[in-house]
Amino acid sequence: MKRINIGLLGLGNIGTGTYKALEMNRDIIVARTGLDFEITRILEKFVDRDRGITVPTEKFTQDPQTIWNDPEIDIVIELLGGIEPATSFMLEAIKHGKHVVTANKAALATNYEALQTAAKENNVMLRFEASVGGGIPVLNALTTALLANEYEEIVGILNGTTNYILTKMTEEGLEYEDVLKDAQAKGFAEANPTADVEGIDACNKLSILISLVFGQRIRPEDIPTTGITGITKEDINQAKADGQVIKLLASAKTQANGLQYAVAPVRLDRSHPLASVGNEFNALFVTGNAVGDLMFYGKGAGPLPTASAVLGDVIEISRAIAKGSAYDI
Amino acid sequence: MKRINIGLLGLGNIGTGTYKALEMNRDIIVARTGLDFEITRILEKFVDRDRGITVPTEKFTQDPQTIWNDPEIDIVIELLGGIEPATSFMLEAIKHGKHVVTANKAALATNYEALQTAAKENNVMLRFEASVGGGIPVLNALTTALLANEYEEIVGILNGTTNYILTKMTEEGLEYEDVLKDAQAKGFAEANPTADVEGIDACNKLSILISLVFGQRIRPEDIPTTGITGITKEDINQAKADGQVIKLLASAKTQANGLQYAVAPVRLDRSHPLASVGNEFNALFVTGNAVGDLMFYGKGAGPLPTASAVLGDVIEISRAIAKGSAYDI
Repeated sequence: MKRINIGLLGLGNIGTGTYKALEMNRDIIVARTGLDFEITRILEKFVDRDRGITVPTEKFTQDPQTIWNDPEIDIVIELLGGIEPATSFMLEAIKHGKHVVTANKAALATNYEALQTAAKENNVMLRFEASVGGGIPVLNALTTALLANEYEEIVGILNGTTNYILTKMTEEGLEYEDVLKDAQAKGFAEANPTADVEGIDACNKLSILISLVFGQRIRPEDIPTTGITGITKEDINQAKADGQVIKLLASAKTQANGLQYAVAPVRLDRSHPLASVGNEFNALFVTGNAVGDLMFYGKGAGPLPTASAVLGDVIEISRAIAKGSAYDI
Repeated sequence: MKRINIGLLGLGNIGTGTYKALEMNRDIIVARTGLDFEITRILEKFVDRDRGITVPTEKFTQDPQTIWNDPEIDIVIELLGGIEPATSFMLEAIKHGKHVVTANKAALATNYEALQTAAKENNVMLRFEASVGGGIPVLNALTTALLANEYEEIVGILNGTTNYILTKMTEEGLEYEDVLKDAQAKGFAEANPTADVEGIDACNKLSILISLVFGQRIRPEDIPTTGITGITKEDINQAKADGQVIKLLASAKTQANGLQYAVAPVRLDRSHPLASVGNEFNALFVTGNAVGDLMFYGKGAGPLPTASAVLGDVIEISRAIAKGSAYDI
């Protein structure tokens, strides 16, 4: 049986979830694919941290070169987060002929062309299902099963933290600041929540979606972006009185004058399928000229849902390796 | 540019939608794939019927042999419906080395092993995204991006006719018989609605899903199936009074004593994501041990949504043909 060897960059929350999910489901993955999978090297400085998993010490390295230069490694999973050194590391891995899987929306949205160009030039696959919508397999659907459609519109709830905050403000009639503190205490919001509450995270994800869906490269800084910090209890109540809810939506739509796109809090009628997407859940609403309206709903973050998407990409690349077709045309 | 030639079996509603969708979106499909696509032969006896599309007369044939024996044809799309002759025709096409795409849930659910075995033996691809959930790309997700999950449960609203009837009974307080007549007048229900209202269509789809998701072959006749003909206005009102809605659910769940499955009308709390799936829409709710809860929502029937799924399969097979990897391992 062919074994796919994986180099993992980063053993934080998501890296640990990915390691754990592979251990947990290895037997079923092997049975389904006829391939075996092993994370053989891990770039991570905190070797001794208690993560609730047993990782052999010899897998750890502090030198990324040992991963690029290991001829046994087929795929590199990048889960460091942040733009650098993640981008440089992915480019190095690609130049060394490694296929790359990442969940890193900030690095992708900022350096999309450089990463895609490098992957094409080096005949390797670059996959990033986890970067948008977490565990929801939406990028896969948009780039395979739905390709016979002209896409007309995408509208997404792409950030779980802000959706949790808006849901609690709506359900419990609380002010933004109070819900934020509660969300931070429960681990649904970061100590520094700026990237989430100012819409930056959703904006990065929208930039990636626009590239895949509409074939246009719109840099995050060119997407008009408004977060939820200005939303008050009164705004929520006013919407409620009109039979509406406020959601932070990332949207792009083809119009006569070109593609229109934005991240902003928007009032939605309660009957809209996105209106009932609550708490930390994410969803993407897509309209194609053949398929009509579609919605994908699920967990947009968290170690195991993200691991599901990361390992799905690993499996897809590995099947292509086994068939000798692991390149994009 | 490589051209993929297609033989089409049946130019009824769905066949016409598929032909139309390919004409409508050919340019965008060519741009995305670098491949060209042409339906070169059509098995259909009604040559002169007005379908709102222009099909060159020389494409029509009344002899399926001319399709099997045409060495230029790469893919056969089967849209005849019904178990026979659809199954025999698909087997013949496969034996002649043609890849097969079908939307035919009855033929698949009844002859799943024979069709899959023939495809494997002849090293061709058999794809059937449109057979479950119409345009919703759910089979693709379950067999690719989600493969790192152990599946725990699937619950679907898989029949648009019955969902339309139950929605109208709920919203307008009407009896089953009255809504059925209205649905028939509007084209949402067949003149002979048995396969829909007795749950047979949903049962066939569940059988296909179980094969793909749980790797078990459960024949349709072995799935306990109850339709909606016994649901009264009183049942609906009673559910409503308890904050619930009645939906025809097709479900399968792993339990300690094995896989449990059924098609039956079930009460759902209004807060369940499936509760707000109304009218002719379909949805599938999936739980995986890594990804958690997911839902896929969209149009489960209709010529263009079905065409979206059929052509998505055609594109996937064609990309694999271009890479020399058009076989399953």
